[in-house]
Amino acid sequence: MTYSLMIHGGAGTKPESMNEAAVTASLLDILQQGRAVLAKGGGALDAVNLCVRLLEDDPLYNAGHGAIPNAAGDYELDAAIMDGATLKAGAVACVRLIRNPVDLARLVMDRTPHVLLAGPGAEAFARAYNVPIADIEYFRAARPPHDLSETFTEPHGTVGAVARDNAGNLAAATSTGGWTAKMPGRIGDTPLIGSGTYADNSSCAVSCTGHGEMFIRAAISSYAAFIAETKNLAAQDAANAAIERLATRLHGAGGLILIDKNGNTGCAQSSPFMRYGAIEHGGPAHAAIRAPSRIGFDAF
Amino acid sequence: MTYSLMIHGGAGTKPESMNEAAVTASLLDILQQGRAVLAKGGGALDAVNLCVRLLEDDPLYNAGHGAIPNAAGDYELDAAIMDGATLKAGAVACVRLIRNPVDLARLVMDRTPHVLLAGPGAEAFARAYNVPIADIEYFRAARPPHDLSETFTEPHGTVGAVARDNAGNLAAATSTGGWTAKMPGRIGDTPLIGSGTYADNSSCAVSCTGHGEMFIRAAISSYAAFIAETKNLAAQDAANAAIERLATRLHGAGGLILIDKNGNTGCAQSSPFMRYGAIEHGGPAHAAIRAPSRIGFDAF
Repeated sequence: MTYSLMIHGGAGTKPESMNEAAVTASLLDILQQGRAVLAKGGGALDAVNLCVRLLEDDPLYNAGHGAIPNAAGDYELDAAIMDGATLKAGAVACVRLIRNPVDLARLVMDRTPHVLLAGPGAEAFARAYNVPIADIEYFRAARPPHDLSETFTEPHGTVGAVARDNAGNLAAATSTGGWTAKMPGRIGDTPLIGSGTYADNSSCAVSCTGHGEMFIRAAISSYAAFIAETKNLAAQDAANAAIERLATRLHGAGGLILIDKNGNTGCAQSSPFMRYGAIEHGGPAHAAIRAPSRIGFDAF
Repeated sequence: MTYSLMIHGGAGTKPESMNEAAVTASLLDILQQGRAVLAKGGGALDAVNLCVRLLEDDPLYNAGHGAIPNAAGDYELDAAIMDGATLKAGAVACVRLIRNPVDLARLVMDRTPHVLLAGPGAEAFARAYNVPIADIEYFRAARPPHDLSETFTEPHGTVGAVARDNAGNLAAATSTGGWTAKMPGRIGDTPLIGSGTYADNSSCAVSCTGHGEMFIRAAISSYAAFIAETKNLAAQDAANAAIERLATRLHGAGGLILIDKNGNTGCAQSSPFMRYGAIEHGGPAHAAIRAPSRIGFDAF
C-alpha cells in the first residue's frame, strides 16, 4: 500500500496574469511537504489539512492570505475538511480575519456536534479556541481592493487537497475567498459537503474549484463519489463524469481533483486552465498549469 | 398528466408532546391550499413555496413562527427552494427576524447570481427587498426559550414540500429553526442543496428532516436523486434507498418525502415518527403521523 496526494490552486480563464513558474514551484513545494506527512505513515486527514494551510498562507492563491474581498471590501472566507474513513466533516463559511480557515473547519469537525458554522457564530467559536486571528491588513496587503477588476474578474484561485494514506484512508479539504465582488454573506460550494468537497473511503476524495453556484446546483462532489462507487470508476473516469455533468447540465466552469479508493489520481476541468499537482502511488511529484481538459468542454 | 404534492412537518422521537389531531388538520389544510395552485395549472415551484410559507406561519412546526431558538436564545432560520426544471436554487441560513425564510430563499434564487446567502449579509439583502421582518416577540410567543428542554429535546419539526406540476416540472423547498440549542452560526442540511433539499426533473424532488449533520455527511438528497436517476427507481424505492444509506452508513435519524419524475410519491424515515401529507396524481389528500418506517430502522 502506498500514498497518493493531489492539490489544486484553482481553475479559471485568465492565465496571462499569472506567474506560472512561481505557481508551479509553490505547488511542488507544498506537495513535498504533504508527502513528508504521508511517507512516514501519517493520515490523509492531516496531509490535506497541512497542504491547504500552506496554500492558504501563499498569496498566490485566492484563499487565506490571498483571499479576494467581497463587494463590501470584507474578506469572507470559506473552508471545509472531510474524513473519508468516518464521513466526519467540518466547515466554516463567511468567516473574517481567520488566518487559516481550514484549521477552523478541522476544529468544527473535532470539537462540535455540527458540520458547518458560519459568520459571527463561527468567529466566536474561533475566539473560544484561540484560533490565530489576522489583522485585516494581512489580507489587504496580499490582495488590495483596487487591484480586483484587473486581475480577478473571474472566480478562480480556490485551493484544495485530496489524499489517500498508507492505511487506505481518504480525505479532502478545500478553502477559498470566494468570487470577486460576491455579495456579503454569499456561500459557495467550497464549504458545502457534497458540493465542493467530499471524501468517502468507499469511493473517492474530491476537491472542486470554479463557479461555485454551478457545483452546488449539480451536487458535483457527491456525484463524483456516487458515480465512482456505483459504477466502480477509476479516478480519471470519475473526474471526467463529474465535469461532464457540470458542463452538460449547467455549462458550468471549473475543475476538480480526485483520488479513488485505490489511490489513483484524476483531474478534469471545463475551464481553460487549472493549477494542480499530484503524487500518485508514492511516485514523483509533478505540478502544472493544466491545459484545457481533454474531454472537450473548452467552450465553457 | 396530473399533479402530485407532498409536505412534511418533521420527524423525531417524542410524539407524546404533540397534538396529533391539530397537526393532521394543519397538514390537510395546507395540502389543499397547495392543491389549489397545482389544480389550476400553477407551477411546482409556486406550490412548494406556498406550502412551506404556510407551514412556517403555523407555530406547530419548527420553522418560521414556531422556530426553536439556538443556544444563545436567538432564532436563526434556514430555508431553501429548488426548481427541478432548471436546477436553479436559492437558500438562506442563519437569518434572524425573517418572517418567511422560504420567500427570502426564493428571492436569492430569482434576484441574485448566488445560491446561498447567510447571516448579516442575507439579512441586508432581505431589507433591500423589503422582505417582511418580524419582531423577536413573534418567535418568542410561539416558542418561549424556557419551554425548550421539555418539549424539543430532539431535533424535529422541520418543514418541507415537494411537488410535480401538470407540466411535469418538479420542485422542492425546506425550512427550519434547526436543532435545539444549536451553536450560533450552525447551518444544518435544510438550506444545503444536495443535503436536505434537491429537485431535478431528470429524477425527483426531495425534502429531508432529521439530524441534519448526518444528512450533510451522507449527502442524502442528492443521493436520492442520483439513485433514482441511475437505477430508474420509483419514488418509494428511491426514498427507501436514501434512508437506508443514512441509517446504515451513519445510524442517522430522520426522514424524507420524495416525488419522482412520474409523479409517484414516497416517504421513508429512520425515526419513530414523521408528520407528513400527500396528494398523488391529483387524488385525495391524506395526512398522518407516520409510524416507524416499514424498512426497519426503528432502532436509530
